[in-house]
Formats: sequence, structure tokens, C-alpha cells
Amino acid sequence: MGVGCSSSSFSLSLPNHHCFSSTLNHPKSTSTFILPTNNYSHFHQPSRKFLMNSPPKCGSRSIPEIKTTTQQSLVKTPMSDPHTIDSELLQKLVYDALVWSSLHGLVVGDRNVQRSGSTPGVGLVHAPIALLPNSFPESHWNQACELAPIFNELVDRVSLDGKFLQDTLSRTKKVDAFTSRLLDIHSRMLQIGKKEDIRLGLHRSDYMLDENTNLLLQIELNTISCSFSGLSCLVSDLHRSLLSQYNKHLGVESGRIPTNNSASKFAEVLAKAWKEYNNPSAVVMVVVQPEERNMYDQHWLGTTLTEKYPFPLINTHNVRTIRKTLAEIDAHGKTLSDGTLVVDSETVAVIYFRAGYAPTDYPSESEWKARLLMEESSAIKCPSISYHLTGTKKVQQELAKPNVLERFLENKDDIAKLRACFAGLWSLDDSNAVKNAIEQPGGFVMKPQREGGGNNIYGDEVKETLVRLQKEGSEEEAAYILMQRIFPKVFPTLLVREGICYKEEAISELGVFSAYLRNNEKVIINDQCGYLMRTKVSSSNEGGVAAGFAVLDSLYLT
Amino acid sequence: MGVGCSSSSFSLSLPNHHCFSSTLNHPKSTSTFILPTNNYSHFHQPSRKFLMNSPPKCGSRSIPEIKTTTQQSLVKTPMSDPHTIDSELLQKLVYDALVWSSLHGLVVGDRNVQRSGSTPGVGLVHAPIALLPNSFPESHWNQACELAPIFNELVDRVSLDGKFLQDTLSRTKKVDAFTSRLLDIHSRMLQIGKKEDIRLGLHRSDYMLDENTNLLLQIELNTISCSFSGLSCLVSDLHRSLLSQYNKHLGVESGRIPTNNSASKFAEVLAKAWKEYNNPSAVVMVVVQPEERNMYDQHWLGTTLTEKYPFPLINTHNVRTIRKTLAEIDAHGKTLSDGTLVVDSETVAVIYFRAGYAPTDYPSESEWKARLLMEESSAIKCPSISYHLTGTKKVQQELAKPNVLERFLENKDDIAKLRACFAGLWSLDDSNAVKNAIEQPGGFVMKPQREGGGNNIYGDEVKETLVRLQKEGSEEEAAYILMQRIFPKVFPTLLVREGICYKEEAISELGVFSAYLRNNEKVIINDQCGYLMRTKVSSSNEGGVAAGFAVLDSLYLT
Repeated sequence: MGVGCSSSSFSLSLPNHHCFSSTLNHPKSTSTFILPTNNYSHFHQPSRKFLMNSPPKCGSRSIPEIKTTTQQSLVKTPMSDPHTIDSELLQKLVYDALVWSSLHGLVVGDRNVQRSGSTPGVGLVHAPIALLPNSFPESHWNQACELAPIFNELVDRVSLDGKFLQDTLSRTKKVDAFTSRLLDIHSRMLQIGKKEDIRLGLHRSDYMLDENTNLLLQIELNTISCSFSGLSCLVSDLHRSLLSQYNKHLGVESGRIPTNNSASKFAEVLAKAWKEYNNPSAVVMVVVQPEERNMYDQHWLGTTLTEKYPFPLINTHNVRTIRKTLAEIDAHGKTLSDGTLVVDSETVAVIYFRAGYAPTDYPSESEWKARLLMEESSAIKCPSISYHLTGTKKVQQELAKPNVLERFLENKDDIAKLRACFAGLWSLDDSNAVKNAIEQPGGFVMKPQREGGGNNIYGDEVKETLVRLQKEGSEEEAAYILMQRIFPKVFPTLLVREGICYKEEAISELGVFSAYLRNNEKVIINDQCGYLMRTKVSSSNEGGVAAGFAVLDSLYLT
Repeated sequence: MGVGCSSSSFSLSLPNHHCFSSTLNHPKSTSTFILPTNNYSHFHQPSRKFLMNSPPKCGSRSIPEIKTTTQQSLVKTPMSDPHTIDSELLQKLVYDALVWSSLHGLVVGDRNVQRSGSTPGVGLVHAPIALLPNSFPESHWNQACELAPIFNELVDRVSLDGKFLQDTLSRTKKVDAFTSRLLDIHSRMLQIGKKEDIRLGLHRSDYMLDENTNLLLQIELNTISCSFSGLSCLVSDLHRSLLSQYNKHLGVESGRIPTNNSASKFAEVLAKAWKEYNNPSAVVMVVVQPEERNMYDQHWLGTTLTEKYPFPLINTHNVRTIRKTLAEIDAHGKTLSDGTLVVDSETVAVIYFRAGYAPTDYPSESEWKARLLMEESSAIKCPSISYHLTGTKKVQQELAKPNVLERFLENKDDIAKLRACFAGLWSLDDSNAVKNAIEQPGGFVMKPQREGGGNNIYGDEVKETLVRLQKEGSEEEAAYILMQRIFPKVFPTLLVREGICYKEEAISELGVFSAYLRNNEKVIINDQCGYLMRTKVSSSNEGGVAAGFAVLDSLYLT
């Protein structure tokens, strides 16, 4: 449940943690799509090359020869440097990408249209996208895929160790009211001996490729409300379509884009969980925010669930979904004596959280009551409170300590694989780490445990904050963890937003979706489920404000 | 090439010709989607019931029992009177319809967003739709389907009789500058002995069901730029999806919605025409208006053409499409000595007109030069100038005269079938018809031959205009035809526009798409290609202004 990669928040922002010195707050509003326009315009607009400041010439789709052929420029191919693509070809690619997105539901609510977060069908705009996929080493891709089931298993094992979770988060509890409330619910479940017989996780593990070490390093593991499983597969389809259509001009193979069935896989897993619950009239309940401009990402799962998965899987029964806010669940939900959760007269088989991961999702006691009600019920939770807590940064940091993984996993190969992707992670009571960070602040990021803030600390501020905390000797240090700063490769890219294409230098982050479903007897699903590539404008100004222009992307394996 | 059903214009307005007394001009702007908001709000807003003036409750998709069951109300079922549908169920249906439309590309450019007609991907809004399909007698549906290939054949035969077209339109020529320019091009082709060896027609024949006589009567036959083949099939899919999902609540069978493959059929025919041209590197050129908010309707054909049809059909060659305005074709087009049309270095195999049907499409001589250039070329035209002229209302009226069909068709059954769907059509030099119309103006509509106006004349104005024309004895009477006024059934319906659902009384019009392709040797395709149902708010005020709120609909066979 990371901040930067804030799961289902509509922010596409990548964590700034690793490559920018920045004191910029991440947008707290869940409907902010990119960093504030003001900052964006101020710092980055002047350097942008507007490729389409006038509309494309009536959308000509003719395909002329491109001037820089792959033969002529062995070093800079269109794929390795899309900035070299001939402007006429580029216009066609952009036009086609925009048409494709509009026809295939690769859309979001337009932040300029007020109703776009509440009423579907109005104020639609194509999702912000990279025009072409992002080159990525096949070996690292394979590594990330291999890690998916191991992390799934780890989450499940950790979730069962209530004492570990409570102990690990005990200091955080004192300084972070949000985590404290989650822990209260968790304690109550421990007290009443609540068991989750059927456990469902839809996770996303986020990685960056560190340029200095050439290592794939984990940024965070999201165990609640992982966003973009609905749209990211469409971006892969779009890129595949462009690459195959412009194959001759780009000199690339669309087959190098890995299969990405994120929407259908997640839908399939939700359907299988629903089947495990074994009540044909029960529903899947999606817990949503009252306003959600990323609703189509969510609707793709619901639509796929209804249209594709039920029939072969569950005879003639339709898996129906309902969407409810936490406030609505509090107002219209109850548990029966046997633990059955009933909301608006519907029995709930599976609760799929696309809200509830940030403090802002709980503006009143009503929302906390809803969360508790659900946790106490027998519905399958995605995630349970234990899974949710297992995704916190503090737990991530604890798991990175020597000999901790060994408490949960037996297979030494698996443990070695996990450890190989751990960046350096330290508590602020690790005096050695703090000393190093004060001496070399550029190599570290301070991350607040508290969710929904995104107030990562970089550069000299790391030093200043650590020195201040040492002097004050306050509990506040428990609110942070220290993390090795990752420096991903900066590469040329083409980003398309609101119908306009920008030539940019960017960095990217790979998220691997995975699903885990088990009952008391056996693991039913433990699998990788597609991926999300996010690409974000880099800032050449190390000390400046991070450009927060992030888009959906896909992989091109090299 | 009718006015009201103005082919590819973005106006969804049905012809007012047949049921409203109206002096309202149809919008001349091609980007006007419905009649002007002013009129609309002024006359009709007060009577509307806003079902969703607040956003749907967080899009709840739970499905409660509907209060009025089909058992309880045998007469008024949800399908026969959708106004009886329980409001909670209605909200779900609307929400689901809006989501479905957004995800499946059932979209148009939003008239409130400036760039929505030029840049794809921005300013998208769901297409205006009827929430549920429109009940329609199966026998009349079958009749309309049967007529499609006969009309196709008729158009082809008429198009070959240059003298008939020139003679029929000779008086119109004097009073209608637009038809006159078309006839000039046609004359020139006759002079140079231009033959179209490969002839391609993508037509739409529009019908209304007259309530008094229970006859299916043709409104007009569109031979150029028939719109909504891209979107109408999606509306059928949407309705099928809703009916099957809410089957139990609505008590209907989704199988009663006829198959509608309009987009893939038209794309298939364009691909086959392209193949006939026999040049693998040539393109299909779509002639477009500079601004087009109905672009997604057109893009569905292009996308389907590129994605689905080429491969099995034409080995490994992709059928590529380019989009050009008439002005661009004039600026960048030429014909080679052998007649090959080249635009922007691309050889054009097929010209598919989605512009060029209205006077406003020719703001300067440049556009007329482009039209002539194309007509002189060896590219396959959809339509040729002859096909275009065959679709005029004057020709429609001439064909309705006794013994005229017999000049073009041999099969007596076919002739009888065509004649059975002809409404009364008279020239203004038919003194008997004029006398009748003056005596009983309520039974007639005066339609101007001139395109792009939509200034149909109803009621007492028919009488006044006819009397005036008789007194003046001017040539102006040649600018009109007289038509029997059709009174379609008024039925209760639910229309959804801009995310809001309206309970309305409406009328509807059925358009049957058809395709005709032949070369010198044989007919390659002569087929029905799906349908377009358009439903429009009726006005209970006979003498008032027509409510111009029209939406895309589908059929439910009864």
C-alpha cells in the first residue's frame, strides 16, 4: 500500500522517491491525475516540444516512407529513440493511437468535466499513454514474473502471523493515526479469533531497474486496491496494434510485447473466489470512492466478470457486481448471525476494495464502521485487514532485515530470489544507517509510513530531517523508513495526453499484477496476472521539482 | 440523399416530414447533433422527467426485484411501456448502458468541447441512445430486408441511364444550384463516355411504419454517405447485453433483436471493392468533412477494415485507409494518364464519401474541382456521380410514377414489392395532386429537392405555399416535390443523452443498410447489411415546433 504508487488513486504519479530531489507533496485528492498543472507548466512546459499543437491534418492515415530508416541509423532506431521518428509518421501514429483508445475503452474521466467522476459516459478522454512501448530487458521481465507467486505466498504467510504484524507496526501506531485504526481492527479480529478460510489477494509488486547496479529492485508491494489492471492490458493491445500496423516503418516486432491479460485474469480470479463462496445469488461488491475518474479501469473488471467469466466457470449463473462507497455500506449493510454480509438486500460473496487504502477515504466514523463490519463478516475480502497491513512500508522494511524472510518461507531459492530484489531498507532506529544517510543523503530516500501523503524526502533534506529528529529525540522517527535511492535509466519517449503528444525524457516503473486464492485445503490460484508499465517525465534538474506527468505504457522486450 | 436523414451529417434528426407541422430549419451546421438547444429547452425541457438529475447512486449495480412484474401487468410490460419500469431498476439499466457505451466505443464528440470534432480521443461522450430496443413487427422487418437487394439493383440500373437522370432533373437544375453542379459533372462524364466498370454502393433505405395503413413506407433512399453503420451495430449489442443481463426483470428475450453487423459488413464490402481494384499498395480514401463529431462512427469502419477483413481476404496485405477533405484532395490530388487517382503519393483504390452530399461541403471551387477530379479517375467511387443523383428526391418521385420502374426492372414481383413501399409522391406540375394538397394539406408534406436545408412544409403552410406558387407561376415549384404524409405510431420510450435519461413519447424510423458491388462481368455483392433504428421525441403539439431530440435505437421483433 504505497504512497507514490498509490494503488487505486487516480494519480498515475510514479514514486519520486528514487530519482528526484523533491519536496513536492503528492496530490491528496484522489482525483488528481498528474501533479498540479501549475508546477508542471512552470517547470516543464517551456522545454516541451508540442508535436500536435494544431489538430492532425484531418487525420490522414496514409503511411509515407520514414526518413530515418533502421538501416541508416543502427544506433538510434525508432524504438530505441522515438524522438527520431519522422514527424509525418508520428502524426499518423498519434492519430491512430487516439482513435484506437476511443474505440476500445482506453479512457478516463476528464478532469476538466465536473460530472466525469460520478456519471459514466460523460466527459471521457483517452487515458494518458506512451505512444510506443518501453524497451525492457527480457531477463528482468522474467525475474519479475518469477517473483510474483513467491510474494503472494509471502503475503499469505505473513498475514497469518498476527503478532508479527502488531509488533512490527507497534511504534508506527503511535505516530500514524491511520495505521493505528487499521491495527485496531486487526487486534479485534485477533481477539475474537476471526479466521479467513478463503483468502484472496490481487496484488501488484512495483519495481524499478537501477541503472547503476543493473538490478531489478522492488519499490513496494501493493496489497490493496491495485489500480490499472483494467486499462493496462489495453495499452499493451494498443501498442501491439501500432507496431504491427507500422511494422515496416518502425522495424520492430509486435510479438516482443508480452501478453498482458490483466483485466481478464483479475476478473477470472474474482469469479473463482465468488465460486468458492458457493452462493449463486451472492454478488461481488466493489468498494469505491464517491468520485472516481478512473472508473473505467474498474468497470473493465466488472464487465469482463459479467460477460466472459461466469458462463464456462459457473454454469449459467451470472456473477453480478455492485458498487458501494464505505458510507453506503455503513448505511445499508449488516451482518447476519452467521456472519453473512448483506448490503442493500444483496448477499456479498467477495469484497473487492478500490477504496479504503488512504486516510482520506475515512472522513468520518461511518467509513471505519463499514470497514469493521466487512472485516467481521464471512465475505471474502480482497484484501483482509491482515493482507492490507502486510503491504505497509514498515512491514516491507522489517521483511528486509536479516533472517526475517526465513520465519515465513522455507525454500531457500525463493528467499534468495526475494532478497535479490530488495533495495536497502532501514528503520530510523538503525543508527548505522542513519549515520550513512546523513553523510551521503543523495543515496537515500526517507519515506513516511503514513499513507496518502507522498511526502518523500530527498537529498539534503534527508540530512536535515535526520539531524533534527536526532536532536529532538521524538517518536516522529517511527513515522519514516529509510530506503536506498534507486536511479532508473532516463530514456527518450513520446507521451500523449489530452490529444497532444510530447517528446520527453522519462523514467519508468514496472508493476506486476498477481493473484492468490486459497481455501483451507489448498491454493487455488497463485499466479502472475499481467503488468502495468508506468512512464513518467524525468527532471534533468536534480534539485528541482519533479515533473509529475505520468502515463500508461507497455513493455518491449529486448 | 435526403435532407432529414441527412446521410453522414452528424444530425440524428429524423425527417419532420411526416408527423410534425414544422417550419423549423434543420441545422445547417454538420456538427449540430440535435436541434438547437434554445428551441429544445424552450419547448420541451419543462415536460421532461429527469430521471437522473443527480448522478446515479455511486453506480450501484445490484439488481433488486422490480415492483411491476410482467405477471402483474399483462398489458404494460417493461418492453411495451418502459415508462412502467421501476425507478431503481431504471437507474441500474442507465448506469450499465453508460458504462457499456464508454467501454465499447459507442461514443461521439461532445458538442460542448471545441476540439471534439477534430482531435480524436478528447471530448468524448456516449452516443445518444434509446435505453431499450424498439418493438417492431417481424413481418415489416422481413419486408424491409427483402427490399434491400431490389433497391440496390434498381439504383445500379438507373445510374446507367444517363439520359433518364438528366431529363428527370432538368427542371430541378434550373432552381437548385447544388444539383445543377452535380448534373454538370454527370454531363461531362456522359460526354467523355466515362464508364464505371466496378460499381460500389453502400446505401441506406429509410422507412416509417404508417399507423393508419399499417404499411411500411419508404421515406428516402440514401446513396451517399450513409451514417451510423459504425455505431448502430453497437447499439444492438448494447441492447442485447442489457436484455440478457436483466432478462428476469424485463421478461424479454435478447434473441428478438436481429443481428446487426453493419460495421463489419460495410468494412467487408469496402475490402472486397479494394480487392477488385487489384493494387495491393493502393488505399481506401474516406472523404471527410474538416470537422466531424461523428468521427467514431466512421473510424469503426476503418478500424474494422484494417483489423478484421484484410487478412483472410487479401493474403497478407493490409487494407489501409486515409482520410482527406475535399480541399485536401484538390490540393494534393492528381490523376495519372491512365486515370489512376493519386492523393499525397498514395494510389486510391476506393473513394468512400462521408462528405460531399450537401452544398455546405463545397464552400469554394476547390471542393468542386476535387469532386470532378475523383469522378474522372479510375478509382472506385462510393458513390459515383450517377449513384449520387439516383438518390435524389426528384428521382425517387419519378420512379414512383406509373410504368417507370418497369423501364429498369424485369421481375414483376420485385416491382410490386418496391411499389408497395412507395408513399404517394407527386411533382408540383401534377395539377390533380396539387389540388388535393390544397384541399387536404394535412395529408401532405412539401419537400424541397435542394439538399442541406430540411425545410419541409406541413399543414396549412402546404396550402399557402401551393396557392402562392400557382399565382406566381414561377419555376420555384420545380424545387419541391409533394409527398404523402406518413403518421408513424407514437410510443413511450426512454432516451439517454449526456448521461441523463428522459421519459418521452417518440416516433421511430428504420434504416436498412445495404451494399452492392459489381464488375463488368458479375454482381459480387448484393446484400442487406444491418440496420439503423432512430427514435425521436414526438410532439403532441401538432402545430408546434418539432422536438429534435433523436437517438440511436435498435429493433425488438414482435
